[in-house]
Amino acid sequence: MPREITAFSNPLIKRMRGLRDKRHRREEGLFLAEGLRILTEAREEGHLPRFLFFTGDGAEHPLLGALIEATETAGGEALKTSADILSKLSGKDNPGSVVGVYDELPTRLSLLDRTAAPIWLVAERLRDPGNLGTILRTADAVGAGGLILVGECVDPFSVEAVRASMGAIFTVPLARTEWGDFLSWLRSGPGTLVGLSLDTDHDYRGPDYPAPTFLLTGNEAQGMPDSYADACDLLVKIPMAGKADSLNAAVATAVMAYTVLDKQRRD
Amino acid sequence: MPREITAFSNPLIKRMRGLRDKRHRREEGLFLAEGLRILTEAREEGHLPRFLFFTGDGAEHPLLGALIEATETAGGEALKTSADILSKLSGKDNPGSVVGVYDELPTRLSLLDRTAAPIWLVAERLRDPGNLGTILRTADAVGAGGLILVGECVDPFSVEAVRASMGAIFTVPLARTEWGDFLSWLRSGPGTLVGLSLDTDHDYRGPDYPAPTFLLTGNEAQGMPDSYADACDLLVKIPMAGKADSLNAAVATAVMAYTVLDKQRRD
Repeated sequence: MPREITAFSNPLIKRMRGLRDKRHRREEGLFLAEGLRILTEAREEGHLPRFLFFTGDGAEHPLLGALIEATETAGGEALKTSADILSKLSGKDNPGSVVGVYDELPTRLSLLDRTAAPIWLVAERLRDPGNLGTILRTADAVGAGGLILVGECVDPFSVEAVRASMGAIFTVPLARTEWGDFLSWLRSGPGTLVGLSLDTDHDYRGPDYPAPTFLLTGNEAQGMPDSYADACDLLVKIPMAGKADSLNAAVATAVMAYTVLDKQRRD
Repeated sequence: MPREITAFSNPLIKRMRGLRDKRHRREEGLFLAEGLRILTEAREEGHLPRFLFFTGDGAEHPLLGALIEATETAGGEALKTSADILSKLSGKDNPGSVVGVYDELPTRLSLLDRTAAPIWLVAERLRDPGNLGTILRTADAVGAGGLILVGECVDPFSVEAVRASMGAIFTVPLARTEWGDFLSWLRSGPGTLVGLSLDTDHDYRGPDYPAPTFLLTGNEAQGMPDSYADACDLLVKIPMAGKADSLNAAVATAVMAYTVLDKQRRD
């Protein structure tokens, strides 16, 4: 039987609110996700929260009931609370009826199996949590093997990134690494590294993209360093017809990823 | 010679800060844009600010000097101010060295010339300002004739939308209208209406997209109403390989827009 918390001053609530801060997240090794649909998808993938905060009595929606039961069975705690507290936890006006607190997922490069998928996404020094979450969502949609974050990227477990991922944080393998380590790992097996660049004449529609292709997207403002571009097997450019000289990083990644998918399917 | 404002309590500063609020924007008919590069691009497109706020003395950067001069020549006012005030105006920690206040741009559907471009973007009930700005940026990149906003969309002149557009707010024609008016206008001349949908078997790579093609993207959470889908000449689907059932709206729009561009170029 779930206990009920209605006070903002409750120590657990205070601790969980702290998870919106990166330092606290790192100390606790926990992160927040919200929304019944996303938490249900997480459950179907085998991810259950340590703490599940919900409003209502859990009986009115079968999916919520199932989530509460599964959480408790797995040793987590389900806690009934108010809409106000839920909203404080997520920092959102309408967080839905449920917020889950999960163990951070593993992000070691060595856990990735490059033979598992024909396409992989790689982003270096990604700064915007919305872009990171959106790229995770795209990674899921194209069936990418995972997203590899290189260098000082924004935290993939931030509330904003998790929200933008629309559940893909639970379904897409993630790795965090440094450039040198990434390159060593990449060159220790098969893989074509394709960089998105503005400084090339190769149109993105031209090449074939042998599996596994690793698509590298550079920092939002600066693109990738020259030395990273030099290490790519191929640089490709998405044509710009207007006044702007670049696309949003998540958009460019998606246009490329769907092109790779399309080319690989034709082969 | 620009005057200097250093007090937060200055009435003009207070009024300009109000522009971050939708109601004030509508009353004033003004909006904010930031960043030397974007304001310079706006100048090149013939858009000069009514008020230009800058830090420094304007002499250290030739582009800033040119912007100040052009603003004053056109009857606008250039005002030297502090980094703190600039940051308050834009609501951003690092707003760069300059913020411009512009007259809202015209958004009447009747101003659009459909023969001007082979591809047009249409979004209905778009709710996220970042998505709106990103779609504008993509519209510029694919050489779209413009972006048509249908129904209750987020304000394209919000600081967040303008920022995400990366200057495309000044280069991409914009219209705001209702569905019935849009459809009457569309059917009064040539044009193929293509809707992005999850409820169709037509893969987005299959069809030809005759010019002018109007690409319709539905609301982020709900997609488009059935009656809108029924009014489309064609519904197409972007395949989903993973667990997720949809892409971010700006991402889906961009994947489609680049596909249309690619297909039209092959013809």
